Amino acid sequence: MTQVTAETVSLGEFTFECGETIPDLQIAYEAYGEFDGENAVLVCHALTGSQNVAELGDTESGQDGQAAAWWHEIVGPGKAIDTDDYYVVCANVPGSCYGSSGPASPAPEGRGAGDHGRWGPAFPAVTVGDWTRAQRRLLDVLGVDRLRAVVGGSVGGMNALEWVARYPEDVELVAPIASAPRLDTQCLGLDAVARRAIRSDANWNGGNYYDGQPPRDGLALARQLGHIMYLSKESMDRKFGREEADSDAEGHEFPADPARERFAYRDVESYLDYQAASFVRRFDANSYLYLTRAMDAYDLAEDRGSAAEALAEFDGEALVVSFTGDWHFTVEQAEHLTAAFREGGTAVRHRVVESDHGHDAFLVETEQVGPLLAEFLADGTASERRCVAGDSQGDRHDQSP
Amino acid sequence: MTQVTAETVSLGEFTFECGETIPDLQIAYEAYGEFDGENAVLVCHALTGSQNVAELGDTESGQDGQAAAWWHEIVGPGKAIDTDDYYVVCANVPGSCYGSSGPASPAPEGRGAGDHGRWGPAFPAVTVGDWTRAQRRLLDVLGVDRLRAVVGGSVGGMNALEWVARYPEDVELVAPIASAPRLDTQCLGLDAVARRAIRSDANWNGGNYYDGQPPRDGLALARQLGHIMYLSKESMDRKFGREEADSDAEGHEFPADPARERFAYRDVESYLDYQAASFVRRFDANSYLYLTRAMDAYDLAEDRGSAAEALAEFDGEALVVSFTGDWHFTVEQAEHLTAAFREGGTAVRHRVVESDHGHDAFLVETEQVGPLLAEFLADGTASERRCVAGDSQGDRHDQSP
Repeated sequence: MTQVTAETVSLGEFTFECGETIPDLQIAYEAYGEFDGENAVLVCHALTGSQNVAELGDTESGQDGQAAAWWHEIVGPGKAIDTDDYYVVCANVPGSCYGSSGPASPAPEGRGAGDHGRWGPAFPAVTVGDWTRAQRRLLDVLGVDRLRAVVGGSVGGMNALEWVARYPEDVELVAPIASAPRLDTQCLGLDAVARRAIRSDANWNGGNYYDGQPPRDGLALARQLGHIMYLSKESMDRKFGREEADSDAEGHEFPADPARERFAYRDVESYLDYQAASFVRRFDANSYLYLTRAMDAYDLAEDRGSAAEALAEFDGEALVVSFTGDWHFTVEQAEHLTAAFREGGTAVRHRVVESDHGHDAFLVETEQVGPLLAEFLADGTASERRCVAGDSQGDRHDQSP
Repeated sequence: MTQVTAETVSLGEFTFECGETIPDLQIAYEAYGEFDGENAVLVCHALTGSQNVAELGDTESGQDGQAAAWWHEIVGPGKAIDTDDYYVVCANVPGSCYGSSGPASPAPEGRGAGDHGRWGPAFPAVTVGDWTRAQRRLLDVLGVDRLRAVVGGSVGGMNALEWVARYPEDVELVAPIASAPRLDTQCLGLDAVARRAIRSDANWNGGNYYDGQPPRDGLALARQLGHIMYLSKESMDRKFGREEADSDAEGHEFPADPARERFAYRDVESYLDYQAASFVRRFDANSYLYLTRAMDAYDLAEDRGSAAEALAEFDGEALVVSFTGDWHFTVEQAEHLTAAFREGGTAVRHRVVESDHGHDAFLVETEQVGPLLAEFLADGTASERRCVAGDSQGDRHDQSP
């Protein structure tokens, strides 16, 4: 039976990169397995993910929807990231709403915005750098000095990159999955529209909605845009096509549409409405604003000359994984990242997984992603050299210095 | 001096495909040049386009923004669609808001929704078939029996396809540009989110907002999604990158963002905000709902067996133009359309224009699109055969039966 911990720790006073300080940063984390001094793996969650990366057994995670055990096919006893071998830690990032300090957390006397007793928009701006610094402090508390690996998908991959840029000596292996050193302009645009949707909600009230109705409609729209970014043209065509939905949108809680009777309500709309209705029950709108701001602002190269220079101090090895159908974080971006690792002197492999699942592929294609991670954790990029003769198709960069 | 007409005609009672009737369908149209019995060209506008396709000279169009003279580099005296040679007609589609009957039009006593005197959501649902039938009636009034050509971009291309499916003997040449027989699922999803944004606006009031504030915020969000669909990753990277905007968003009228001080306001967001602010001043939110519904519902093959069967009665010739960077209407969809023409026995050419301007390319790449249209109008697909030896790069389907 794998040992499991799910708790929230107080890290005390924390000064964010923006210069603002809060008196006590709380970090909710989960840890699976036993630490033997050399087997710690930090998993970094995606935008709306949680610390609940794997099944907790008898322990109640408190998460639901896509935040619950979100990578349980990759992380667990006997899985690719085997919690019988590794001590796996996953922490909810500051600014989120799954137990770590964020805009929805109670504010100390005199620090919150409005009369609702929460931080609201008075919570300090958070960055991917802040997530990384908070994780470093958490690992100090847990007694973990050096990590065997940092693994993360999507913006969690940015978090992993920030680790090796900021603490190059603390990490042996890094695996950014479906990620990039920075977002492209199209995604910046879509995120800006998503945030505007939240701010346009009549209930938003400048972010001070905790004593009233939250801006559910705006958050729902933001989530729907996210979902479209996470899928691909191919996966949407295949899953939904132009089919009409079987059932009506009962319980999806969106504003009524007088045209509903005259035009098809399609599977794709029903899916988006359903997902949005589920999401707004579990996620805080201010957190969505804060975390997308952090993602959009992230640029590995910023103040470091270039991505290659940012990675130059890192002496470990890197596995970059990308997915052919992903237009949120593209294969091309992963190629640039791989080149930056190489230019910085890191042993790096880029594996391109054939998938039409879009960005979601990093969550869905576990049968392809799992073995890549298992081999990388065990042997670093050496594992790749071994199998390259028989398995070169998805291997764009057979490079080791 | 080219003769120009800009007026609105009453077509009398009109029964829409949904079965509902209005007592007097008004159609605002413009006509350029002189009709000689054989030189009529119908141009079909895109989703939020207007009848004002070209410069009107001394006549006041009343349009502004991107609805004003929207294809003036293609249509006009001495241009590719030369109004010295052709009699060019462009009509605002029913359901729109540039002078033709639509939700914002005054309703007859007892027919409107609410107390605002407009149709509002009581206006009948419109379809691409209705647009086409209304255009046929308009041309009857103008004395045009048979068209030399129907040309349209984007959903205007669907409108053009509907012409040859519905009135195959009335058309010699058809040119769908950056179009397809139906939308793909990803675009259906984005349109559904855009409509939900309008319905989520606190001012929407079920579409009965004409005696109050219109749902500007929701319409702005919808338009921003449209703009992102009209651009490409490449054009957005090139135009905006991650640059910060020079000026602040003065006058863009969006809800304030407390995070603005702490994070970059980027060029891409500034562009989207500016375009949205301009759009909401010129377009009606109900029209946006109606016209996207018409576009989303359109399927050339519906009730006709297949796209090829829908096109089988057409004895003319077709030019399909697509653009490599267009993800709203893709090159692949254009290839399917071309195959359907060919299967239906139509002489067809598919020209693929290299462009990273996304869907906007059909408006922007006039130097490439113009000559294709000029040659096609003059000689049909024969013009293409002439130049194929020296210009085959963008020519995927050198096919003529």
